[in-house]
Amino acid sequence: MIKVGIIGSTGYAGNELVRLLMMHPETELTWLGSRSYVDEKYAGIYKNVFSLNDDSCRDDNIAKMADEVDVIFTATPQGYLAGVLTEDILSKAKVIDLSADYRIKDVATYEKWYGITHKSPQFIEEAVYGLCEINRDKVKGARLIANPGCYTTCSILTAYPLVKEGYIDVDTLIVDAKSGTSGAGRGAKVPNLYCEVNENIKAYGVATHRHTPEIEEQLGYACDKDVTINFTPHLIPMNRGILATEYAKLNKVTRSDGTEGYPTADMIRKCYEKFYSDEYFIRLLEPGMNPETRWVEGTNFVDINFVVDDRTNRVIMMGALDNICKGAAGQAVQNMNILFELDEKTGLELIGMC
Amino acid sequence: MIKVGIIGSTGYAGNELVRLLMMHPETELTWLGSRSYVDEKYAGIYKNVFSLNDDSCRDDNIAKMADEVDVIFTATPQGYLAGVLTEDILSKAKVIDLSADYRIKDVATYEKWYGITHKSPQFIEEAVYGLCEINRDKVKGARLIANPGCYTTCSILTAYPLVKEGYIDVDTLIVDAKSGTSGAGRGAKVPNLYCEVNENIKAYGVATHRHTPEIEEQLGYACDKDVTINFTPHLIPMNRGILATEYAKLNKVTRSDGTEGYPTADMIRKCYEKFYSDEYFIRLLEPGMNPETRWVEGTNFVDINFVVDDRTNRVIMMGALDNICKGAAGQAVQNMNILFELDEKTGLELIGMC
Amino acid sequence: MIKVGIIGSTGYAGNELVRLLMMHPETELTWLGSRSYVDEKYAGIYKNVFSLNDDSCRDDNIAKMADEVDVIFTATPQGYLAGVLTEDILSKAKVIDLSADYRIKDVATYEKWYGITHKSPQFIEEAVYGLCEINRDKVKGARLIANPGCYTTCSILTAYPLVKEGYIDVDTLIVDAKSGTSGAGRGAKVPNLYCEVNENIKAYGVATHRHTPEIEEQLGYACDKDVTINFTPHLIPMNRGILATEYAKLNKVTRSDGTEGYPTADMIRKCYEKFYSDEYFIRLLEPGMNPETRWVEGTNFVDINFVVDDRTNRVIMMGALDNICKGAAGQAVQNMNILFELDEKTGLELIGMC
Amino acid sequence: MIKVGIIGSTGYAGNELVRLLMMHPETELTWLGSRSYVDEKYAGIYKNVFSLNDDSCRDDNIAKMADEVDVIFTATPQGYLAGVLTEDILSKAKVIDLSADYRIKDVATYEKWYGITHKSPQFIEEAVYGLCEINRDKVKGARLIANPGCYTTCSILTAYPLVKEGYIDVDTLIVDAKSGTSGAGRGAKVPNLYCEVNENIKAYGVATHRHTPEIEEQLGYACDKDVTINFTPHLIPMNRGILATEYAKLNKVTRSDGTEGYPTADMIRKCYEKFYSDEYFIRLLEPGMNPETRWVEGTNFVDINFVVDDRTNRVIMMGALDNICKGAAGQAVQNMNILFELDEKTGLELIGMC
Repeated sequence: MIKVGIIGSTGYAGNELVRLLMMHPETELTWLGSRSYVDEKYAGIYKNVFSLNDDSCRDDNIAKMADEVDVIFTATPQGYLAGVLTEDILSKAKVIDLSADYRIKDVATYEKWYGITHKSPQFIEEAVYGLCEINRDKVKGARLIANPGCYTTCSILTAYPLVKEGYIDVDTLIVDAKSGTSGAGRGAKVPNLYCEVNENIKAYGVATHRHTPEIEEQLGYACDKDVTINFTPHLIPMNRGILATEYAKLNKVTRSDGTEGYPTADMIRKCYEKFYSDEYFIRLLEPGMNPETRWVEGTNFVDINFVVDDRTNRVIMMGALDNICKGAAGQAVQNMNILFELDEKTGLELIGMC
Repeated sequence: MIKVGIIGSTGYAGNELVRLLMMHPETELTWLGSRSYVDEKYAGIYKNVFSLNDDSCRDDNIAKMADEVDVIFTATPQGYLAGVLTEDILSKAKVIDLSADYRIKDVATYEKWYGITHKSPQFIEEAVYGLCEINRDKVKGARLIANPGCYTTCSILTAYPLVKEGYIDVDTLIVDAKSGTSGAGRGAKVPNLYCEVNENIKAYGVATHRHTPEIEEQLGYACDKDVTINFTPHLIPMNRGILATEYAKLNKVTRSDGTEGYPTADMIRKCYEKFYSDEYFIRLLEPGMNPETRWVEGTNFVDINFVVDDRTNRVIMMGALDNICKGAAGQAVQNMNILFELDEKTGLELIGMC
Repeated sequence: MIKVGIIGSTGYAGNELVRLLMMHPETELTWLGSRSYVDEKYAGIYKNVFSLNDDSCRDDNIAKMADEVDVIFTATPQGYLAGVLTEDILSKAKVIDLSADYRIKDVATYEKWYGITHKSPQFIEEAVYGLCEINRDKVKGARLIANPGCYTTCSILTAYPLVKEGYIDVDTLIVDAKSGTSGAGRGAKVPNLYCEVNENIKAYGVATHRHTPEIEEQLGYACDKDVTINFTPHLIPMNRGILATEYAKLNKVTRSDGTEGYPTADMIRKCYEKFYSDEYFIRLLEPGMNPETRWVEGTNFVDINFVVDDRTNRVIMMGALDNICKGAAGQAVQNMNILFELDEKTGLELIGMC
Repeated sequence: MIKVGIIGSTGYAGNELVRLLMMHPETELTWLGSRSYVDEKYAGIYKNVFSLNDDSCRDDNIAKMADEVDVIFTATPQGYLAGVLTEDILSKAKVIDLSADYRIKDVATYEKWYGITHKSPQFIEEAVYGLCEINRDKVKGARLIANPGCYTTCSILTAYPLVKEGYIDVDTLIVDAKSGTSGAGRGAKVPNLYCEVNENIKAYGVATHRHTPEIEEQLGYACDKDVTINFTPHLIPMNRGILATEYAKLNKVTRSDGTEGYPTADMIRKCYEKFYSDEYFIRLLEPGMNPETRWVEGTNFVDINFVVDDRTNRVIMMGALDNICKGAAGQAVQNMNILFELDEKTGLELIGMC
């Protein structure tokens, strides 16, 4: 059994880790770390595990945790892990960080968008960006996983094959994303109150949201050049789910019959299949089916589809995932499965509720 | 024009007062008091009045406010007004208190249920309980109005005619109430976060909710004896609205033909009509129509109906209102209209949105 | 592997059966019956199983289905199964009926409340009322299971120990229940449209709801006398979940020290524990924790608690479950597990999402 | 008093017309037309007007209606009005059509996008596109108003000043719009059921939605050339409200100091002010405030703002309105006010609820 410690187990992503790992056949929850609820019964805070989990929360002493567990998940605010991570910890336990601290390779970019000084830039280089479907091989054997952001996972996976294949002009890429409210976390803030979110929709972080450089960096690797995009998140009155609607101009390419022209819908479908047909967690929907967040809620799936608009020569790509699962805790468990050489699906073969 | 000051104008009830009074033809908003937002533009906090109201919030100096206005609304936490009210204030301005400070005549009862020491019990006697449909005559000429609670208004008005007429055994009265989340206020608390309230229902304050003694006192006046009831509030994933479902055993009465027996549905309907047929804000629905909160949202109406169960000889009474309007700010404006001898409906002839 | 057929697989309860049985290690979905979607891909209708299930819907020929499967689930409108069930079918396959056709032993009562003539009353006697925690022993070896209603399961389990022990006066029992909208089914009806349900609450079927006699019959067995109650369901703007708030007068009983008096909170807790402490799916919450539907959503749990009101000598009991899972499909799978002598929890050890 | 008839008064837009016109000081509701509810009490269907409106629904005989009223509102499916409109009707009453029948000047375009043969193309020419803030002068004196679509009103008004001024490259314009569910109408369809919409978001009509050519035509008039855009609507779990997020590349322009360059945020703000500072119903928010649908719910306001992204040289424009009010019935009443030479705000000075 893999012994697991969680720092930040009482946030929404933390509870999702607890939920997933309690159903996981190969793990043992050893340390439920918390800052606000030390010594309180976990099941008294999150009654979904009432009668199933008798543990009390422990503190967030990560050095001590590393002595007791095989893997540490950090579901913590930006900057936390960078402030406490040490070589000693990494030598004792795998670390899967759900925050942004090691996602961005360029420290200056991180510090600019996050407005924080990075306390341990020496670990950035070795950290592996844990977008499993793209970086699976690098994840194997890593000590430190930078688990991707929720918007980022959705935005990248939805566009990745077309960027990689050169089918779209990345300079025209616009990502209009919509998220449920759990993405805002469990902090007690007025804008996240029920009556402020319900019966409402708004954009936020327009042109300034921190997931922007993360998307740009990863798509940049795919097309081997600098990428600058527009990314606009919106807050939606629902608990879970992200839908990314992405727009880009098609590039003219040489078709299989030798002619020059825009990629056809058929070519684009084949492109997606080339990258994703063996991916259990990515479901390329059939033509005419638009991704809906409800079908992936509570699961690790990403549902993707696209429409070609012959009037504008743009492709509209759509991707849906559960921000707390595939967008956070689910992908973290997927990374853990890879790290510990388990079947990648272990504990994640969940089916969404209608 | 009536000059109006509001203490607590940036809470949900405060904003409803602002909304109603800005549409009211006879009032002028003179002082928007706040504790947290002093000197901030009101329209920057509540953008429903953007471009319509250019005022900045002022402090909550009630003594100074009394010099400038004709009427003061206090939409404040329990205990606030009791701590600052003076004879001088009452001599200068009418005070309509949306808190519970002067609703309960017995200080000991207030202090027991609210867990606060009452700082100015000397004003309790003169305060008029502003349930307009019942106490209209007393409201006229009063200086201090104790504006009823949201659950209370709904619970009392739904049962009042049958209690008054002796048709039900008040000792069997059970009030099961359901409320939208605005009733919990705009304070930043985890239990009121979107993700905690959405897709959920729970009871709270079971057997201990503070509106209980207020309902008991008022129904006690109606039947001229002590009343002890069960009142259970529930939190519902919607912004506004309260539905009270009330149960009571019917009393045997002497019917018009001289026989003894339980009141018939027809007799009960006539009883409601006797008390409410002239009341604009109380709508006795037709047989078979159950009150729904959506039809009264944003209005000062209370929709009421009932079903007689011949199997159990109980009557099930149902009442619906908007907790922030008729349950708070709307009724407060109705009281103001009475105090200033305006048509009671002035500024309150609103129609709900479908 | 147990071969399974479902009649009505494209309704909400049908899809929940599909979801649960696809995750169940001992079953094989052999026949997904439908009336409206014959020959259509199931995963095209319910995209939660996209990429996981490649079956097309088949018709609802139950006689033919009985030749191919070991167990038939009927998630069908009232009257359907009664019209098609035969001795031949029962001789070939176990039948678990999610409709009300065989729940009520007295045909006249069924016909009165449902307004339908019962077409096969000869099977009523042998049908076992599948409330697993109460009737587990009778379920074993049965051929025909009448799977309880959603409101019924919640209402009965919440009150059962206190009724059985004689702690409450059943003649005073009032059940005020609140349900998510999935209980209304997937039929295209105006009252179930999003805009009609959202931001609204209403009672319905007041004093006439069909689950009433079912609750009365089962509680009657518990206290060995006729029971007549008030049951009022309400429609709530959420997808899943039922909360039952139940009120009853306490009976005076002889306490362990020989004195006569009302049962104390401690005695009531012990009474619940006596019946439920070994029940995995029933979670008696700790004092002060009120059941909330979100903690049981997607699971087969029932969360129960109570408050004693010393002022009125009533006990307020509260129970929460997922109407589509423990209230329908989950309990049906639990019954199947018992019928086929599997561990009762097989495939049902699900943890709710926060 | 202006006598008003409504065809389609029992749909959501129809009920909004009823709500607004009952609060309008200069109108008299003479004929509430319906197809499904003839002779039924209107207040029995829409209980928001219970006790306030005693009328029964009449049929949809528009010719007869024209004899009795001064103005006819048609809140009807596409193709209805085109099939029944006559010169005789237009000679007797003003007609304000909330459907798309006369919005698009090119019949072929209409027939292609709507898939219907236009039955009365002879009236298209004279119909005035009733986007009041743009076409106010043409509305005056017209007989037939083509009231704009909900998405269209929001999309056009949000971009109009920048298109008109040549600040943006219209060929790069992308409109990503999100709508509450009332826009789908009150028809009983499975996709609009509560449980299908709640906790979900999806795109629909991608690259094919019928409001696209309407937006293109109107923006084409603004910049005097053919416009082809991408427009993607999304369905959101809320009753009312549309948010349009619009993206376009900035054009280089000659600045006031003679230099060539992209318009600054300040220039863009001035451009909006130039067109909208005198428009009561258009509220240009202050820098940093993003439009939210809740602030305009129930009102005729459009809230607009923008962000310039210096990294991409795009402007992100955002507009929010109530799809049933400014996006349908409110704008129709605004058009009526103009037609009858009333103050344009009459009956529309509504303040949204928090």
